[in-house]
Amino acid sequence: MIWRRLIYHENTKIKKIEILFAFFRVFAISCFRDYFSWLSALRQTRVRNLGEKKMKIEELKTPAFLIDLPKLKTNIEMMKARAREKLVTLRPHVKTHKTAEIAGMQTASEAPGITVSTLAEARFYQKSGFEDITYGFPITANKLSEAAELTARLQAFNLLLDHPQTLSALEVYGQEHGIKFKVFLKVDSGYHRAGVDPSKPASVQLARRLAESDHTEFKGILTHAGHSYHCSNPAEIAEVAGQERDVMTQFAGHLREEGIKCETVSIGSTPTAMHAPHWQGVDEIRPGNYAFFDKFQADIGSCKIEDVAATVLTTVASHYPDHNQILIDAGALALSKDPGADHLDNDMVFGGAQNHPHLKIFSLAQEHGLITSNDPIDFEKYPVGSLLRIIPNHSCLTAALFPIYHVVEEDQVVDEWTPMRGW
Amino acid sequence: MIWRRLIYHENTKIKKIEILFAFFRVFAISCFRDYFSWLSALRQTRVRNLGEKKMKIEELKTPAFLIDLPKLKTNIEMMKARAREKLVTLRPHVKTHKTAEIAGMQTASEAPGITVSTLAEARFYQKSGFEDITYGFPITANKLSEAAELTARLQAFNLLLDHPQTLSALEVYGQEHGIKFKVFLKVDSGYHRAGVDPSKPASVQLARRLAESDHTEFKGILTHAGHSYHCSNPAEIAEVAGQERDVMTQFAGHLREEGIKCETVSIGSTPTAMHAPHWQGVDEIRPGNYAFFDKFQADIGSCKIEDVAATVLTTVASHYPDHNQILIDAGALALSKDPGADHLDNDMVFGGAQNHPHLKIFSLAQEHGLITSNDPIDFEKYPVGSLLRIIPNHSCLTAALFPIYHVVEEDQVVDEWTPMRGW
Repeated sequence: MIWRRLIYHENTKIKKIEILFAFFRVFAISCFRDYFSWLSALRQTRVRNLGEKKMKIEELKTPAFLIDLPKLKTNIEMMKARAREKLVTLRPHVKTHKTAEIAGMQTASEAPGITVSTLAEARFYQKSGFEDITYGFPITANKLSEAAELTARLQAFNLLLDHPQTLSALEVYGQEHGIKFKVFLKVDSGYHRAGVDPSKPASVQLARRLAESDHTEFKGILTHAGHSYHCSNPAEIAEVAGQERDVMTQFAGHLREEGIKCETVSIGSTPTAMHAPHWQGVDEIRPGNYAFFDKFQADIGSCKIEDVAATVLTTVASHYPDHNQILIDAGALALSKDPGADHLDNDMVFGGAQNHPHLKIFSLAQEHGLITSNDPIDFEKYPVGSLLRIIPNHSCLTAALFPIYHVVEEDQVVDEWTPMRGW
Repeated sequence: MIWRRLIYHENTKIKKIEILFAFFRVFAISCFRDYFSWLSALRQTRVRNLGEKKMKIEELKTPAFLIDLPKLKTNIEMMKARAREKLVTLRPHVKTHKTAEIAGMQTASEAPGITVSTLAEARFYQKSGFEDITYGFPITANKLSEAAELTARLQAFNLLLDHPQTLSALEVYGQEHGIKFKVFLKVDSGYHRAGVDPSKPASVQLARRLAESDHTEFKGILTHAGHSYHCSNPAEIAEVAGQERDVMTQFAGHLREEGIKCETVSIGSTPTAMHAPHWQGVDEIRPGNYAFFDKFQADIGSCKIEDVAATVLTTVASHYPDHNQILIDAGALALSKDPGADHLDNDMVFGGAQNHPHLKIFSLAQEHGLITSNDPIDFEKYPVGSLLRIIPNHSCLTAALFPIYHVVEEDQVVDEWTPMRGW
């Protein structure tokens, strides 16, 4: 007991004792501080000593979000290899999972930066040690103070915009606060969700303003070919990927002809990242969903159903043979109501049962999921109380519903990861 | 501090100073303790001194979930009055909001209990002081230890089941652990989502087993007429409400004829609770959505659109006049992909813009929402950076996406409530 020796070593001189007590107080207070910061860390990451007490999947409460670790690793390394092979930089979109753990795996060794979908994600990843972040939604005036803070804290915080009024707001804010924002021009490459039309002179004009403004550093042009999700097979996806690339490289060329320095051409969606024949003229790709994949990606041919790393564990709660139905405890709040690839000729379902492709999740209420089949269900194969694993239609939306992810290898739970939430 | 007194009890000179220091330490430590427990409370409830520094809605970050406090109060009092008038007990389903605050308002003065959709909700409300809780999803064997814990802690914790194998699992567990579960028999009154068919002898048999088992206390019969959501107007809803009531009272009568004591007849959905002509023979109703209402309820005639207390605040992020589109920062993670009352002849939308009924939210990606209109949009009315409030299709699913709710009165934010999450 050090403190005791310290206190007693000259116990007649009160002054020295006082100094010692002052030290003790600092020590005690710092102990409390340590205790509470430990508690806070515990709360945030819900660390469990899983090494000591390994859990089996069947011991988990349901519904639960499972990540198959070997599949996750394979998917992550596959996309790194594709980017390496095709000579583009990979800037993964981390909105699919929103965890520090998976982003760390995605960026390890070669990817310098990440893409996020909210400012809250940007703050979370900044605190987790990421230094180069692109915020993938057009900035608005009411988010500029948050964006300015992140700009100050990060080596690179890249914004997007596609409207001249937004640029004006940036300039006013930049002038008032003496700040220069790094900005991409968001381009519509055919999806028609967001972005400027690259065929219009006004788009070149906006790029020029970005390049010449005192309060913006023009980073380049950026697109997301979300219309690849309307495809039905790899050949169609490859066509959209070609269009995404060509629209962007041609627009970059046009800007350069006009004397506007276009540093980076950034594209990306998981389907086009999987099937683009080449990326000549492209600098970076920003796929995100590939970490997990999902039923949608498998249905349109971005991956095989066996590649999907995310499933929802659920319990069979009852049987209704008269209606050829099974009730499970995974409803809309465990699976999301994403209709999946409903443009295909498939039956409309809210996910697929792993290893039981004939089972169809045809209806979701808040906590109730209903399964049926085109054939009479063999109910004895799915006893009341038994478990099923559901492959989600859209893993990004499904993952977002869970406060915790269970990381599994075969039938063992090997880790727990806590995603961030909110805006 | 006892150890200090023990150490110094023979040194009077030092003792006095020591006592002072001991007090100081206790004071310092308790300050820290206070600080950290305050911090923890802050984290949990995000208490803000809104009294001192009132915030305007326009100062909120978007997307944000807003609860109109006067409308919420009106809806809550309206349903209490309906229950009082029609002589049934109101046991509100709190899954819509999952907050202690709103459940407190719903149960204040007259409702003795609540309904929950998950065991995590049951634990949350038990800790929040609620003593009479019905868990509204059929129990399964793997949830019995949690159910047993809640049974021990609560004055009444009511389970449901509809399958004889589940009852067998309850009996095995009950025998092993010396516990008696309170159980409702879940009945299908026409929705075909869950519940036994009341016309079948096997259903009477299951009720008899529940009534006679040593490990269950038979609480009565319970249904949810979810098929009221397939209606198009109040007249149709009233018809379903009649069916819900009649199926249940007749089945209760049948059980009583068979000598099975059926204590409680429990029914309920928001539409049928709004339009049932009478509830003779019914003991309790369990509506939930009425606290907020939503676009779905307004579309089928459960309420008027002006009654909806929940909206999502969003920012106009860009304009695309070529496509007659507005981009907002409320996507699938802010609104949910619930398709709403898509059985009606309305245009399929993901919510309605408050005070702008011609605006249609026709597409949602994770963080992107796209608005269009059947007529050319007057973009000057919705400047880039301005705010809109979206009435959600399904407020239960939308609320579940937000880590915090902002409570508003006119243009002022008057409170913040934190819902519980998870399973």
